[in-house]
Amino acid sequence: MSTVTIIGAGNMGSAIAWRVVAGGNDAQVLTRQPVKVAIPGATHGTVGDPLAGDIVVLAVPFGAVAELLAQYEGQFDGKVLVDLTNPLDFETFDSLVVPVGSSAAEVIAQAVPGASVLKAFNTNFAATLTSGEVGGEPTSVLVAGDDADAKSALVSVVEAGGLRAVDAGSLKRAHELEALGFLQLTLAAAEKTSWTGGFGLTA
Amino acid sequence: MSTVTIIGAGNMGSAIAWRVVAGGNDAQVLTRQPVKVAIPGATHGTVGDPLAGDIVVLAVPFGAVAELLAQYEGQFDGKVLVDLTNPLDFETFDSLVVPVGSSAAEVIAQAVPGASVLKAFNTNFAATLTSGEVGGEPTSVLVAGDDADAKSALVSVVEAGGLRAVDAGSLKRAHELEALGFLQLTLAAAEKTSWTGGFGLTA
Repeated sequence: MSTVTIIGAGNMGSAIAWRVVAGGNDAQVLTRQPVKVAIPGATHGTVGDPLAGDIVVLAVPFGAVAELLAQYEGQFDGKVLVDLTNPLDFETFDSLVVPVGSSAAEVIAQAVPGASVLKAFNTNFAATLTSGEVGGEPTSVLVAGDDADAKSALVSVVEAGGLRAVDAGSLKRAHELEALGFLQLTLAAAEKTSWTGGFGLTA
Repeated sequence: MSTVTIIGAGNMGSAIAWRVVAGGNDAQVLTRQPVKVAIPGATHGTVGDPLAGDIVVLAVPFGAVAELLAQYEGQFDGKVLVDLTNPLDFETFDSLVVPVGSSAAEVIAQAVPGASVLKAFNTNFAATLTSGEVGGEPTSVLVAGDDADAKSALVSVVEAGGLRAVDAGSLKRAHELEALGFLQLTLAAAEKTSWTGGFGLTA
């Protein structure tokens, strides 16, 4: 049994919270404004509330992460901290805003050395987390990180929720996962793939 | 009608030559050693022979590219030059050997400014070029480059051969394509996906 705190209830946060509950685990959803429609089975609260989860998913845009890290300073220590961002420069749609060769996940890991940071979900469009499939393939959640126990904990929650989880290697691979997420967003924006599809990984 | 020169007849070169011929275009296959089994419909020759194609595919490992560029110095000018390499550091399997943030395709484009360099095929396992599918999806050949006419020429050949071709943007996107190719290779090596599958792109 895990408790997962999800900060943010946009398309991604909502879909993840729904999968967490579906897997029989506890979901705490924290938002700045009250949600209009509660996620059945989840506990709702306000950003700033104490973190109930051993796993915390930052389901916000990369631009909103720094403020969360400041607000919860010290409180992520000892937790599994999951970054799902795609840190695009949305003005140009032509590059990322993190240092070249690095990743949002590695930037976050440097900022919060007491947490076990994982990269996950950034290569999944929200619709595929809900539907459970990409084209004919089961949705694969790619997970990268340096802490094997942290990865196992997240993988268990993902699999309990009915999705395929794939160990994508060390946190260094977050660079490649973010490149894939970036590419997928540009292809969807150019209508070369659909927002309900994208890249699927064969088993 | 296009003529495509393919340098190299390994799994990738052979599969591409076969698709070129299948599409009713001409394939010239150049190898250092005579091939054991000729590709039906293709013209075979030796590396060093004059280039018959307007499109030239470098179907060799990245480590063999520099020698080809030297050997054909000046002869790629005015041609569409297709790079399909995944420039991995095969000793560590943990990074690429091109400058951080760049790509093999951009390195080649700098070395051969007279050619229209495209990145293509590096996200396709050879088996999927032959089978025409990745899981349940048609195989998508992602093509990046700065010259729209060059991209159109290659896209026509790929589509004539029965595969889906997808414009993945400017040559800068080769960085993301190579990140995807790298990730896919590490996942296949770790048996998280199969060498006959990998990532498929939904339409």
